[in-house]
Amino acid sequence: MRQTSGYALLEPGQELRPWQFERRDLRPDDIAVTVTHCGLCHSDIHAVDGASGLLVPGHEFVGTVAEVGAAVTRFAVGDSVAVGNIVDSCGVCDYCKAGQQNYCSEFPVTTYGGSDYHDGTTTRGAYSREYVLREDFAYHLPAGLDPAGAAPLMCAGATVWEPLVRWDVGPGTLVGVVGLGGLGHLAVKFAKALGARVAVFTTTAAKEQAALELGADEVIVSRDEAAMTAQNGRFAFILDTASGAHDPAPYLRALALDGTLCVLGIPQKWTVDPMSLLIGRKSFAASGSAGLPQTQRMLDFCAEHGITADVEVVGLSEVNAAMDRLRRNDVRYRFVLDVTR
Amino acid sequence: MRQTSGYALLEPGQELRPWQFERRDLRPDDIAVTVTHCGLCHSDIHAVDGASGLLVPGHEFVGTVAEVGAAVTRFAVGDSVAVGNIVDSCGVCDYCKAGQQNYCSEFPVTTYGGSDYHDGTTTRGAYSREYVLREDFAYHLPAGLDPAGAAPLMCAGATVWEPLVRWDVGPGTLVGVVGLGGLGHLAVKFAKALGARVAVFTTTAAKEQAALELGADEVIVSRDEAAMTAQNGRFAFILDTASGAHDPAPYLRALALDGTLCVLGIPQKWTVDPMSLLIGRKSFAASGSAGLPQTQRMLDFCAEHGITADVEVVGLSEVNAAMDRLRRNDVRYRFVLDVTR
Repeated sequence: MRQTSGYALLEPGQELRPWQFERRDLRPDDIAVTVTHCGLCHSDIHAVDGASGLLVPGHEFVGTVAEVGAAVTRFAVGDSVAVGNIVDSCGVCDYCKAGQQNYCSEFPVTTYGGSDYHDGTTTRGAYSREYVLREDFAYHLPAGLDPAGAAPLMCAGATVWEPLVRWDVGPGTLVGVVGLGGLGHLAVKFAKALGARVAVFTTTAAKEQAALELGADEVIVSRDEAAMTAQNGRFAFILDTASGAHDPAPYLRALALDGTLCVLGIPQKWTVDPMSLLIGRKSFAASGSAGLPQTQRMLDFCAEHGITADVEVVGLSEVNAAMDRLRRNDVRYRFVLDVTR
Repeated sequence: MRQTSGYALLEPGQELRPWQFERRDLRPDDIAVTVTHCGLCHSDIHAVDGASGLLVPGHEFVGTVAEVGAAVTRFAVGDSVAVGNIVDSCGVCDYCKAGQQNYCSEFPVTTYGGSDYHDGTTTRGAYSREYVLREDFAYHLPAGLDPAGAAPLMCAGATVWEPLVRWDVGPGTLVGVVGLGGLGHLAVKFAKALGARVAVFTTTAAKEQAALELGADEVIVSRDEAAMTAQNGRFAFILDTASGAHDPAPYLRALALDGTLCVLGIPQKWTVDPMSLLIGRKSFAASGSAGLPQTQRMLDFCAEHGITADVEVVGLSEVNAAMDRLRRNDVRYRFVLDVTR
């Protein structure tokens, strides 16, 4: 076994604490990655708050290949790599065969808190110095992308990229982005680079300037009823990155004929007003993360367009303070842990 | 004014009763239609039950042109015509310009219970001997279609046709149809004629034979949990014709990657489980009736494929008994009033 260290939730309700633990010895198709940067995702907070036992969070990270298994073909020691929120899938179900490992019928092995298909151990995340995974679930980090800013591409980025592509966002599209956090700010950058016109829906006028600086063409304050009514029938596609339950009706009404509202949040239930969906034959959709092919396409696109997340980098030892600030949405737009310090 | 007669709800809570009333004198672009057959739609029952005053139902009918206004160009006296659930729209909003008069932003003038744009009178439906409307909202009834079986095409048919076309149902598609009533049985006929493979979801095994006779390739009893679980991930498109509130989750789970569940019912609210929507990036959509171009396409398609509704024809004087049976879903598959007797 391989010795490593990181920050872990050792007992429910506690802060994360330094912890020594072991990674598996490399299987033939494994690589070991020396983690340099790992993003803090909102879902890390949900996982920590809901944990019943030991947990090492972290599922959007970059680093350097430290060692390769005997059968590894795609990576060599020293390569820069990026890893997202899944590290294995069954490979044979319809979803896997379609390149949508994120929806694997056997449930993909998540980067932490998942159950390894081979030895049944619980996966431990990348708030840690080293990570071991199958090479098929690692990506080459394109040269020229800042590693800290690239880490959040692997979850936040992939999650907003795939629906933008699925719903053909591009030149001539007017796309709405609801929420301007870790996901939303990348959605704005992607949609603009894809050639679309972009409007940001935000609850607070205070974010207007920030949205415009990110490239948004319009900003709509969603608490302003008159402003929202003025949007009726305008949008081909709206990507709703707001977490938690909220009424989708105003965004459904903002869609044009045959438009789609795609939500990324996962509340207990969504409540949908039938007429807001029926008038204009609209669709209410959801999307979760991305498969391997689209994640690679996103990284290539980011390299081509020079896109990374806007991040605030803190040392791994500052993880608890960063999580507290993230709980209050006090970050523009993503915390990234520098795992080397 | 033109004298006519029909069956009307005269006071809330009563049965429909014979009633003499007037139609407007023809405007230059109006035609007068001698109604021969009018379908009984479930929405007629909702309208009667919810009426606060006088109501003449009936919004899917066929007949013969009795007289034409001075500027009418598309029809001549004696032509066979068909009319659906809308008889006017603004003509200038985005929806109207896109040929989706059914979603007109000014709200289309419904065939009964609507408010005429010009004189503000309330429209009265086709449980009556004559109807007067703008020629633009009438269709030529193709030769060879039985008039009684054609009447329900104008609402039930149009309502299921448009989503089937919108979501590209055709050869190679596996489509599900939920419910086997007036709408569902036409959806099965259309989907088969469009070249799709069709599965019917029904609450009762008793309808299996009937579904197969209509052309269904498979029948799934939706109350059979094991049978429903076996459908997971199979369908590109499911058209849900069941009225009233029900849980869409089992049908969302039955969709394949990027599949769409389109509902036609209008309950108070739909409650949607996020994971049933997210896993497989699925869409929950709604659709209502059809615009002029697609209604014409549907009629042409029906003529080409010899499709009409399976109907039980009763005289206009039997309307109350027919409505009572319709309340109990005791009809295969649509009542049609012969207005001439």
